[in-house]
Amino acid sequence: MRIDVAFGPHGLVAAELTGRTVMVIDVLRATTTICAALDAGARAVIPVGSMDEALRLVQTLDSRDVLLAGERNCDPIPGFPLGNSPRQMTPEAVAGRTIVMTTTNGTRALLAAAPAGAVFVAAAVNLAAAGAQARRALEEQADLLVVCAGREQAFSLDDAYTAGRLILEALGGRRIRKGLNDGALMSVDLARRYGPRFDRPLAVSASGRQLRSQGYAEDIAYAATVNRHPVLPVFHDRRITVMAGPESVPSASPPAPGPGG
Amino acid sequence: MRIDVAFGPHGLVAAELTGRTVMVIDVLRATTTICAALDAGARAVIPVGSMDEALRLVQTLDSRDVLLAGERNCDPIPGFPLGNSPRQMTPEAVAGRTIVMTTTNGTRALLAAAPAGAVFVAAAVNLAAAGAQARRALEEQADLLVVCAGREQAFSLDDAYTAGRLILEALGGRRIRKGLNDGALMSVDLARRYGPRFDRPLAVSASGRQLRSQGYAEDIAYAATVNRHPVLPVFHDRRITVMAGPESVPSASPPAPGPGG
Repeated sequence: MRIDVAFGPHGLVAAELTGRTVMVIDVLRATTTICAALDAGARAVIPVGSMDEALRLVQTLDSRDVLLAGERNCDPIPGFPLGNSPRQMTPEAVAGRTIVMTTTNGTRALLAAAPAGAVFVAAAVNLAAAGAQARRALEEQADLLVVCAGREQAFSLDDAYTAGRLILEALGGRRIRKGLNDGALMSVDLARRYGPRFDRPLAVSASGRQLRSQGYAEDIAYAATVNRHPVLPVFHDRRITVMAGPESVPSASPPAPGPGG
Repeated sequence: MRIDVAFGPHGLVAAELTGRTVMVIDVLRATTTICAALDAGARAVIPVGSMDEALRLVQTLDSRDVLLAGERNCDPIPGFPLGNSPRQMTPEAVAGRTIVMTTTNGTRALLAAAPAGAVFVAAAVNLAAAGAQARRALEEQADLLVVCAGREQAFSLDDAYTAGRLILEALGGRRIRKGLNDGALMSVDLARRYGPRFDRPLAVSASGRQLRSQGYAEDIAYAATVNRHPVLPVFHDRRITVMAGPESVPSASPPAPGPGG
């Protein structure tokens, strides 16, 4: 059993991904926003690598059902009806729709992780659901890889803290030191150091500071709300959908708002 | 004034490097070994990207003066007289010689940093000398970038801890939160969390565990010895040499063995 954390999608190679359970985190904001959209009834989110690809893909789908979403430098993309804010993902806006999404870091990390056997979307808003899935993977002796989206190939504190919280959730109180790579050790240290509230690590991170400076402070508060969206999004066959079956509401960790909210 | 830490050389672009003071760290073991070699009287160390390049370069130099050094998967390269162990860098072996060196991570990080205005080599063994140079850079309002070599594009705890120690040394007791990227914040956190002794973060890191398992435990103890080699290696015009002038023995921090050794 191994638990690895990668602080960016660079360097992920298909051979390392094959057969592993992968969790992708871009807590500010893409994976938070994906959870919000699916919990609001969106049918699927399709991550794509570029604006061009998003526009091309829309033309092949039934346009009445499809919404474009995404950001560049944190701001909405001109002409796209949705940005990358979880607050936009209301049932009125997205229920029954398929969202084609492109963001600077989050969707790239998802696409880089795609060769893995199972890719899940994790954030604070679905911490218990993602943590329960990670715990099941470890119980089945699967290797876990947490991929932090990072910022333009650089380390991001907000994602690393969330990775640490996810691993602690998966371990459920067990203490292990073996089988963790340096990134996982570091993330767990970070989760312990900052404690149970997401607010502070998200606010002091470079992503948090940039969002605040551009008027998106409310998105940070939203992203810090633990278990607000108790869904387990799974990325399979190019689409992210809510995991069907009992796994979507794990019994071990009820999806009520936690103390970290 | 900015202080950034990059946890690997991936993603470094020339535009970000230009005009910055860059410190490269591969504490286990390349930058430790470079300090040891230069302090033992080696004339220069020339980092190269591959074994082929090392062999080609040797043919263009005066072969009596040149020694090949390096590792792959921590072990010496067959046919090369020196590996990547600082313990091999004795005056008997290297005084007056030019060393052509290729390692998995350290020399690659140095080569990636080369477009910067000034590139220095940092480790625990020259912490005070490197820290004093970093402090001078900050006093002159230069931006500081610490490049951790990492492990095959992944985060490495040993380098990140060393980066944090270097930043604390450069700040000299000042506390700043602004102007640090997430990697720098994290490294400083890590340095505070593990405290003043290098032994433990080096031993628990993946690099440390691998070295120990392959019989190089003594190299970890060597690399953890603070200020054992009070030199400031500078990488300029393809060669690493000892910085000439008063900077090589900074008056503010005498290069005596520190409490962290």
